[in-house]
Amino acid sequence: MIRRTVRDIRRRNRSDVLQCTYAAGHPVNRQQIAAATGLSTATVATLTGELLAAGVLHEVGQEDSRGGRPRARLSVNGARGLLIGTDVSEDFVHIALFDLAMRVRGTFERPLDPGGSSPLDVVELVALGVDEVLRDSGADRERVLGIGVSVPGLVEKEHGVSLLSVYGHWENVPLKALLAERLGFPLYLDNPLKASTVAELWFGAGRGVDNLVVVTLRTGVGVGMALDGALYRGVTNCAGEWGHTGLVRKGRGCRCGRLGCVEAYVSAPGILQTLREADPHSPLPALEDQRAAIAGLAEAVRRGEPAAVQALEDTGDHLGAAVSTLINTLNPRVLVLGDWTAQRLGEPLLDATRAAAARYALAQPFNAVSMQLCRLPHNPVSMGAAAFALEGFLADLASGAGRAGRGGARPVRG
Amino acid sequence: MIRRTVRDIRRRNRSDVLQCTYAAGHPVNRQQIAAATGLSTATVATLTGELLAAGVLHEVGQEDSRGGRPRARLSVNGARGLLIGTDVSEDFVHIALFDLAMRVRGTFERPLDPGGSSPLDVVELVALGVDEVLRDSGADRERVLGIGVSVPGLVEKEHGVSLLSVYGHWENVPLKALLAERLGFPLYLDNPLKASTVAELWFGAGRGVDNLVVVTLRTGVGVGMALDGALYRGVTNCAGEWGHTGLVRKGRGCRCGRLGCVEAYVSAPGILQTLREADPHSPLPALEDQRAAIAGLAEAVRRGEPAAVQALEDTGDHLGAAVSTLINTLNPRVLVLGDWTAQRLGEPLLDATRAAAARYALAQPFNAVSMQLCRLPHNPVSMGAAAFALEGFLADLASGAGRAGRGGARPVRG
Repeated sequence: MIRRTVRDIRRRNRSDVLQCTYAAGHPVNRQQIAAATGLSTATVATLTGELLAAGVLHEVGQEDSRGGRPRARLSVNGARGLLIGTDVSEDFVHIALFDLAMRVRGTFERPLDPGGSSPLDVVELVALGVDEVLRDSGADRERVLGIGVSVPGLVEKEHGVSLLSVYGHWENVPLKALLAERLGFPLYLDNPLKASTVAELWFGAGRGVDNLVVVTLRTGVGVGMALDGALYRGVTNCAGEWGHTGLVRKGRGCRCGRLGCVEAYVSAPGILQTLREADPHSPLPALEDQRAAIAGLAEAVRRGEPAAVQALEDTGDHLGAAVSTLINTLNPRVLVLGDWTAQRLGEPLLDATRAAAARYALAQPFNAVSMQLCRLPHNPVSMGAAAFALEGFLADLASGAGRAGRGGARPVRG
Repeated sequence: MIRRTVRDIRRRNRSDVLQCTYAAGHPVNRQQIAAATGLSTATVATLTGELLAAGVLHEVGQEDSRGGRPRARLSVNGARGLLIGTDVSEDFVHIALFDLAMRVRGTFERPLDPGGSSPLDVVELVALGVDEVLRDSGADRERVLGIGVSVPGLVEKEHGVSLLSVYGHWENVPLKALLAERLGFPLYLDNPLKASTVAELWFGAGRGVDNLVVVTLRTGVGVGMALDGALYRGVTNCAGEWGHTGLVRKGRGCRCGRLGCVEAYVSAPGILQTLREADPHSPLPALEDQRAAIAGLAEAVRRGEPAAVQALEDTGDHLGAAVSTLINTLNPRVLVLGDWTAQRLGEPLLDATRAAAARYALAQPFNAVSMQLCRLPHNPVSMGAAAFALEGFLADLASGAGRAGRGGARPVRG
């Protein structure tokens, strides 16, 4: 049973202070942090003191306080260290290097065919990408505070085992151990649903929101939840497999082997299948590059091509029905349509989905939810993976472990 | 934003001590409480001290401690006061009077036709029932610590307004104010989904379980969730309206006006409709008393009547598909099939549902969940409503408000 302790409250409060500093986008004083977080000024003073001492925050000047004592302006100290976020997706590997202020220092991307890649191939590709991104940005390996890695499917959190990859031949792969051994950084493994949600919690639509649902639409589909303010994992870290819940009974075949799953309709391949049904002659579904195909669909919608518009409307209807289950069951404040598929289809998809959800959901929870597109400036999965590393670093700060020692990263262990 | 404080932790810990004392079913010593709750012996000593001082716990003897200091045996002090739980359902009002040890002191039940009843009629019926149950059990009105009332539909928690009753003409009724004025007790209003879940948390399958889902199957259908150990309400207390999520697209009409809702298939009327489809000549669906009709179906299943067996199998298939959405999305530890419809159909319904869920849900979350029938000894909604009153009383104890003053109930206010 989860037993919350005073230490959990301190951890949560420390995260809130830091999140609000990230959110401001400019230096803030302690009074502004107290106002934004709802914490007492005494608590904010203690927590900012700890974060200053650890080098996570730094003072960037003072401001007049109408005759009172001048107020220090604080911001996150980017130079404190580096975070790496890695998105091993179904069809590409994306790596982003961030400084602690979450400014991108470099990125790496390479296509991936997981059907043709062994787990060790992927480990090597990630290691190659990390080396490349560090080298290209002139960054010192010693200053990396941690790396987060997202892999599709179910991740057994305790041992970092990839339990199920619906697309392929990986099962029970001890990925965390393989990656950690190869890379030598503190390493945090989870899946894109949870990574995207943590990215929104730290840097996006989830800041200060108690009940957040983040829908991930890419080659795979699923949902992340931050309920009552914290990432919800479920009892075996499997929560969020909404992509494999039933949308149409005895409907389209899904790659999980079942029929009529949400994913079979609103994933990128599902949407392209809907387009194929609307126009059997469309060249887009046959493109090898799914992201280009979805971008082509978005372009065709903008041009008003009837089959494309029909496919978008049908997708909005499917997605509206599917998110209504989440809206009615979870009564969230914010529901984000995220990741590259939603990003490329943009406002027209959001509008069609919202219109359908208004029909399918109950009025009260529908009226209570704000449906939004993801507005994160980078790949949300890589950002969220980096946020896992940030959270790990902060936890180590509190306990004095890992690379959190004052003054910068320790030498690589082992 | 919800901000957890040290006070919340104390409240949670105090509830845990009390829940474990209820759970034992016999007097327990402080060491046993510490072992069962995971709290330190010092914390248990402090909390039991407070609960003893408030008269909520009492010592019921000592036990030898193999030469050490004798250990006090503690139990909940039933004589400390009375709790009333009221279940205003679609077709009956049920009231149960409990002592603080949750022993039933008396019950009241009366059929109700909400289509023909105004909110004030219901208020009067509840008041009549409360008077009757207190009189019949020789209980002193002054000793009532609080009353919980469950009404179907959505309840706006802050103001106790019934926002939607899918069956009728109640909307925006300030039920809490009406009831509180008429009854004169501290009053807690919510819906059966949340009441059933709180009953399981305090007295049933939810004790010590972090991720609990309670499915309510009666004239209406919905779900209650206790996620990461606390009742989940959603942002406007609307969470749990899974009964009105899509099971079959363009399927059966639902009383909410939509098509193919879960409720249209697995509520008592939905199940009787399934029976009607299996056997148009069955007399059961035409019975006015739905509870008798479902009991008749259960009896026919036991006798092996083919249409009844078919209807039960079909219901298990519908329910298995519907709960798979909850299992995949929420990854719970325990999923309870509760309330009178599940109770009457019993093990055959549980078996058919489990078999279907094994096909529809992903293997990992399915293997992680224990699907159970509700084993609470009374109407779970009345028990849960009483538990809301218990929680209110405990909160007042902490703050010194309400009827929680030391030594018993205060005179009725107002």
